[in-house]
Amino acid sequence: MPVLVMKFGGTSVATLDRIRRAAKRVGVEVAKGYDVIVIVSAMSGKTNELVGWVGETSPLYDAREYDAVVSSGENVTAGLMALTLQEMDVPARSWQGWQVPVKTTSAHSAARIEEIPPENIMSKFAEGMRVAIVAGFQGVSPEGRITTLGRGGSDTTAVAFAAAFEAERCDIYTDVDGVYTTDPRVSAKARKLDKIAFEEMLELASLGAKVLQTRSVELAMRYKVKLRVLSSFEEQSDDAGTLVCAEEEIMESNVVAGVAFSRDEAKMTLVSVADRPGIAANIFTALSEGGVNVDMIVQNISEEGRTDMTWSCPTDQVVRAQKAVADAKSDGIINYHEIIADTDVAKISVVGIGMRSHTGVAAKMFQVLSAEGINIKVITTSEIKISVLIDRKYMELAVQALHDAFELEKAA
Amino acid sequence: MPVLVMKFGGTSVATLDRIRRAAKRVGVEVAKGYDVIVIVSAMSGKTNELVGWVGETSPLYDAREYDAVVSSGENVTAGLMALTLQEMDVPARSWQGWQVPVKTTSAHSAARIEEIPPENIMSKFAEGMRVAIVAGFQGVSPEGRITTLGRGGSDTTAVAFAAAFEAERCDIYTDVDGVYTTDPRVSAKARKLDKIAFEEMLELASLGAKVLQTRSVELAMRYKVKLRVLSSFEEQSDDAGTLVCAEEEIMESNVVAGVAFSRDEAKMTLVSVADRPGIAANIFTALSEGGVNVDMIVQNISEEGRTDMTWSCPTDQVVRAQKAVADAKSDGIINYHEIIADTDVAKISVVGIGMRSHTGVAAKMFQVLSAEGINIKVITTSEIKISVLIDRKYMELAVQALHDAFELEKAA
Repeated sequence: MPVLVMKFGGTSVATLDRIRRAAKRVGVEVAKGYDVIVIVSAMSGKTNELVGWVGETSPLYDAREYDAVVSSGENVTAGLMALTLQEMDVPARSWQGWQVPVKTTSAHSAARIEEIPPENIMSKFAEGMRVAIVAGFQGVSPEGRITTLGRGGSDTTAVAFAAAFEAERCDIYTDVDGVYTTDPRVSAKARKLDKIAFEEMLELASLGAKVLQTRSVELAMRYKVKLRVLSSFEEQSDDAGTLVCAEEEIMESNVVAGVAFSRDEAKMTLVSVADRPGIAANIFTALSEGGVNVDMIVQNISEEGRTDMTWSCPTDQVVRAQKAVADAKSDGIINYHEIIADTDVAKISVVGIGMRSHTGVAAKMFQVLSAEGINIKVITTSEIKISVLIDRKYMELAVQALHDAFELEKAA
Repeated sequence: MPVLVMKFGGTSVATLDRIRRAAKRVGVEVAKGYDVIVIVSAMSGKTNELVGWVGETSPLYDAREYDAVVSSGENVTAGLMALTLQEMDVPARSWQGWQVPVKTTSAHSAARIEEIPPENIMSKFAEGMRVAIVAGFQGVSPEGRITTLGRGGSDTTAVAFAAAFEAERCDIYTDVDGVYTTDPRVSAKARKLDKIAFEEMLELASLGAKVLQTRSVELAMRYKVKLRVLSSFEEQSDDAGTLVCAEEEIMESNVVAGVAFSRDEAKMTLVSVADRPGIAANIFTALSEGGVNVDMIVQNISEEGRTDMTWSCPTDQVVRAQKAVADAKSDGIINYHEIIADTDVAKISVVGIGMRSHTGVAAKMFQVLSAEGINIKVITTSEIKISVLIDRKYMELAVQALHDAFELEKAA
């Protein structure tokens, strides 16, 4: 029988009633003839409680013990989901990560799945079991210790299972009903997309649209897993939600798929840096070694052998960045007059596969912002994305103006 | 280095503060030079919450899923205890049942430990780890599924580890400071025992003194594990609590060690049973097959070929017992006029190794009760115990009178 993977996030299994509702959705797919692998998160709030206890016990905790503690919430949901399905007369059983086993690296709290041997679960399907419920977010290291995949890791668990079991599709049930052209709370004209390409979803996911964990999209793209995002709180038709799929499967699409934004970006500038070969390398090596994730970079035109170097990074890494460059200065590696941090900025991005073949998207974006009187501080582009840093107070205005200008409220 | 097993019950690890207090006790033993195996229960209330969810989800639950769910509380405590010890610079790590592995039978929810290979933990001790924290109450079946040992099973886990690792002692930290001659809430003269023999503890444990799980005492007796019961809420000296040990290690002891009682006992009588060979076997086979745990049995003198058969069983099994004998009657296996259930009774027992060599304990017990005007309904005796069933309203009076008569307030 074909295999379907269904993943239910924390809000979708937050209470026994919601677990029952999710189980009913699983029952519908079983009735259609699928053998189903269900990936569950912890009941919402549970993982945060456990993380809180660990932090209170040991601020600089041993990540192996952290993993042993915080993985327990998923085990509870998996067992309860199995019992709920059994009550509905659906043959089901739960599996913890080590039982499958979900083999991961030893990078505790941020482990990567290396292999999921399908034999154990497939042999149970062959015996008549119809649903395998697997605790998401967790695995087992080569040393036999419990690992976790990082927050949101259950999405990655789901996609990895879909790949390992060659599932027909991986349905991610969550508290939103799909992927939108932008956040509906910012633009009332935001439209749910029926389909979106992996590459676009990847840009949107990493740009702050919190629907899917970035790694799960990367994995889906690599293994060509059809990924569907849909709401566990609405009655579902077969084409509900948003399908994340290969570019080729999308017949018609807008040049721009969506407008993303992030408030968690800061702009930092090193003023009056000696402009000589290798200086950029020195600065960004120091930042990298200091654990700073630099996103955008701009270097001003040099004047009298000195220049300004500007970059953006997550707001919560500003202190770390200041320390990294100050240390590099006192070590004589770099030289500058001043460091300026501006946390009052936002990043706006337009994303779309269509940019590859359509020119003029960047020009149009800049015109729209200019017409609204919004000054652009930094620009970066990739093949399918243009991002700008602007004053945070203009963020909503910029999103709405761009959404209108690219006519995202209309389907292709 | 010598190995010590320390077990902390749910109230002793109910909060992060209490886990810290328990960890400090562990640190004291490590400083003395012990390699310590710590067995932890779930934070108090957690297991009940999980059991409640399972019952609400599925009244006739799959015991395998029940075990997968309810075992998760211990995993949380084990990880938090490891982190707490690490914060105190004590090299420690947590182990879940399957990681040790604690090999059990497949009797889910009531599994028995079959083997605990010490190699994994011993090799870590050899590397310098000083404390292995093991999640109590759980193990793994030959099929690789999680099992639990039944409520209170962490005591059994602790004793089994003490046996497998040839520990010097197994310290059970709980919310009382030892084993008493009787319940201090019933007799103000109750005295804490410094030592008690395994056999006596076994009778007291199964008679309703809820300090230790019966199976843990059986196991300790079989493997000659020195078991100490002590409070986690008091400063401890080396001879704190009560040592449960072999008879030979107790130099002086009272003839009677303690007075136990149970309110959860019911008296049932089958009136006018045909008195022919095999009839007792038929009755008690029917009760046994009906899942009734019969404790005491009395058969009246036969008159005109008919007799009354009386037994005691736990109060919550009365309905089951009534159904079992009624079914046996309608199947023609037994014949009786009437069945009477009296749930208004209590069982009082005096227990002591010394009874083996001292006669007259039973006679004295009966005299004491008679002098108080308390009628005895049923009597049973074993080598080291005499139990009687009396009207429940006399329970406290009987306990106090017997405690006085046998001078249990005085040490031997």
